[in-house]
Amino acid sequence: MAEQLIIDFISTGDEVLTGEIDDTNASWVSRFLLEQGVLLSRRYTVADNLDELVAVFSECSRRADIVIVNGGLGPTEDDLSAAALAIALGQPLVIFDDWVEQMRAKYLRMNRVMSPANLKQALLPQGIDIIDNLVGTACGFQVQHHRAMFYFTPGVPHEFKTMLRGKIWSDLSTRFNLPPRQRVRKFFTYGYGESDLVEMLQPLQLPPTITLGYRAAMPFIEIKLTAAAGPELNARCVQLEQLLGERLLYCDGSSLAAEIQRMMIAAGKTLTLAESCTGGLAASTLIAEPGSSAYFDRGFVTYSWAAKCEQLGVVLSQLEQSGAVSETVAAAMAAGALNSSAADIALSITGVAGPNDHVTPAGEPLPKGRVIFSLAVRGGCTTTLVCQFRYRSRTQIRQMAATFALDMLRRYLSGLPVKSDLNYIL
Amino acid sequence: MAEQLIIDFISTGDEVLTGEIDDTNASWVSRFLLEQGVLLSRRYTVADNLDELVAVFSECSRRADIVIVNGGLGPTEDDLSAAALAIALGQPLVIFDDWVEQMRAKYLRMNRVMSPANLKQALLPQGIDIIDNLVGTACGFQVQHHRAMFYFTPGVPHEFKTMLRGKIWSDLSTRFNLPPRQRVRKFFTYGYGESDLVEMLQPLQLPPTITLGYRAAMPFIEIKLTAAAGPELNARCVQLEQLLGERLLYCDGSSLAAEIQRMMIAAGKTLTLAESCTGGLAASTLIAEPGSSAYFDRGFVTYSWAAKCEQLGVVLSQLEQSGAVSETVAAAMAAGALNSSAADIALSITGVAGPNDHVTPAGEPLPKGRVIFSLAVRGGCTTTLVCQFRYRSRTQIRQMAATFALDMLRRYLSGLPVKSDLNYIL
Repeated sequence: MAEQLIIDFISTGDEVLTGEIDDTNASWVSRFLLEQGVLLSRRYTVADNLDELVAVFSECSRRADIVIVNGGLGPTEDDLSAAALAIALGQPLVIFDDWVEQMRAKYLRMNRVMSPANLKQALLPQGIDIIDNLVGTACGFQVQHHRAMFYFTPGVPHEFKTMLRGKIWSDLSTRFNLPPRQRVRKFFTYGYGESDLVEMLQPLQLPPTITLGYRAAMPFIEIKLTAAAGPELNARCVQLEQLLGERLLYCDGSSLAAEIQRMMIAAGKTLTLAESCTGGLAASTLIAEPGSSAYFDRGFVTYSWAAKCEQLGVVLSQLEQSGAVSETVAAAMAAGALNSSAADIALSITGVAGPNDHVTPAGEPLPKGRVIFSLAVRGGCTTTLVCQFRYRSRTQIRQMAATFALDMLRRYLSGLPVKSDLNYIL
Repeated sequence: MAEQLIIDFISTGDEVLTGEIDDTNASWVSRFLLEQGVLLSRRYTVADNLDELVAVFSECSRRADIVIVNGGLGPTEDDLSAAALAIALGQPLVIFDDWVEQMRAKYLRMNRVMSPANLKQALLPQGIDIIDNLVGTACGFQVQHHRAMFYFTPGVPHEFKTMLRGKIWSDLSTRFNLPPRQRVRKFFTYGYGESDLVEMLQPLQLPPTITLGYRAAMPFIEIKLTAAAGPELNARCVQLEQLLGERLLYCDGSSLAAEIQRMMIAAGKTLTLAESCTGGLAASTLIAEPGSSAYFDRGFVTYSWAAKCEQLGVVLSQLEQSGAVSETVAAAMAAGALNSSAADIALSITGVAGPNDHVTPAGEPLPKGRVIFSLAVRGGCTTTLVCQFRYRSRTQIRQMAATFALDMLRRYLSGLPVKSDLNYIL
């Protein structure tokens, strides 16, 4: 049974162990294996030190069924994985001529000359089997040592992932009785607490073969269903989508900006944004999506009172009476953005991003995190909503505010009431 | 000698091992220790599994001098660190009444009632010494086991860092002959390759007691000097600042936006931005800094031709003849931003963020990554610069473009020529 397989992962390299780089390969491989239905047993992180590497290889060779070693395959002198394996195996290092030829061919295709230093990448312990690297010049290799099958992989994330997902996973599948390939489907919402979602998704009543998981992916919450691909998983995904209903912002492979773009283009509408506290963040989020020029007309970053008056036609007396963070001014900003453009829809954002609290001109408290939004449709309605974000940092408040605004637009474009069932204290 | 100390770090928790969360505590502790002059020997990542935890504790107790265990101290049933240690030590778990009282007092101060489940956090192996948690309710604890002194620490990053920097580091300092406390000074530049910087900083001729390091911190490059605090380090920092000269954007504790804000306020000037391909990203970067309202007047996100004409007064024939990504239009955008505001300085950005290449109206190639910038000063000069970014992703091109634009402003405010010695193929 796959559950009894012991799988260890060894990250090598001073730059990982000194914290110079976050070990994203380690978290990626953990997630990848989990999605295949197997759980890593241990992860080791080891310096570029020959004795330490030999010791860890020997330890793992006796305790694990599968050992994946990452990094240390490059041409420089601190790349020690092959040398350490040779010592652990008690085998000499020999030049693998076939791989030298392959490297030469790879360099030729890139119009580059292979340096003599690269020969080291073909100097490998006798008896290993080479694993081709389809996207780089450092080969992987594998060998049985005591109880464990060792797989050595390159540190470059793109090369590592390609090799693991491809050749290594298919080799593992032939050698071990792995669970059927798992599929992960991801659904994104935002603004609800995990306990709200647990309650909301209660009716799913999942069988033990399907796992439900949550993950904070600021500003979103990721909901994951993991199971063997098939009609059962598909049916549960449909059920989950129904339970989430209008709270589902987008699914795996998409983004909130992409969903908005798709709906804006389908509706043949154009958009303008008037931003104060978010200061261009909402516009930048939409424009990050290629093709946004098809519907995004223009944005106004009206940070000063003068900008709000001159660019958007907000009246000075409104600012003086109600303050910049008020429903009056939010609505005036959205109306002004329509007047100052040919866009069909305008969205405005004004708020207190912090770090300090404010007060209204009337002396009412205006705490940090208070943000007011207005969505105005040319020839149609204007909806103004008041929100209080509980996040403490200026960055988080601005990020949540941009997301909230874009979600108002998503709801409008989906034919939903712009106001959702959130309690607006987020 | 500190160099011979073997220090292991053990991260516990399924959420780390399944890749649900990146193990930022592990990379932080690695960097922290390195900055103190000591290198971690190994990192282990272990699931919430009693047998595995006991096995790893026993292994480390025989091979290491110092073992830092992170996580697994909470009140839920998958928090197993104390139980596993009790088994490894062969000691019973007992309630530590003193800690119960301290927890009660902590909850009282937060106006909350302690739940009975929290009692588990005071159920610890007999013989351990408690380490107070100044910022949370889970105590740490320490115990000698075989060769190693074990330190158990909470998983919440803020609590972990406070405990390690404070009580644990001072305990380690009394028990072991650690190197003198190190200081790290960081300097940020951008746009240069690491080999350029190595050459630039060649004259530093550092003694072996001072370490120079580089780290990519997109879009910046971080240059680090690590050494014992003192006049030698200070003198080398001055020398490094001189060698970097105008290429130094900011030092540790500041940011490019903060530097610009400081100089804008000192100069009593106000700013406006006209953005096309960055779409509000440059404005958002500046507004992320609290207090930016003191100088940031307004931004124009002019994504469409109509927006460029109507908001900034760009002439349609200019767009037709030169295209939106041209020096003519970049300069017209900056001039228009000055005309449409009362700001003293205007900065414009127009370019091809990708994913596709474009062509000019004359049929010349306009590859992805080509971005044109213009800085216009009211009553002064206009400087227009053309840049070709080599980055492949739309996100990276937009991020580098926003940084490049802000750096033009920094150079102007510092009294430097706006054009730097970069080769403008970045």
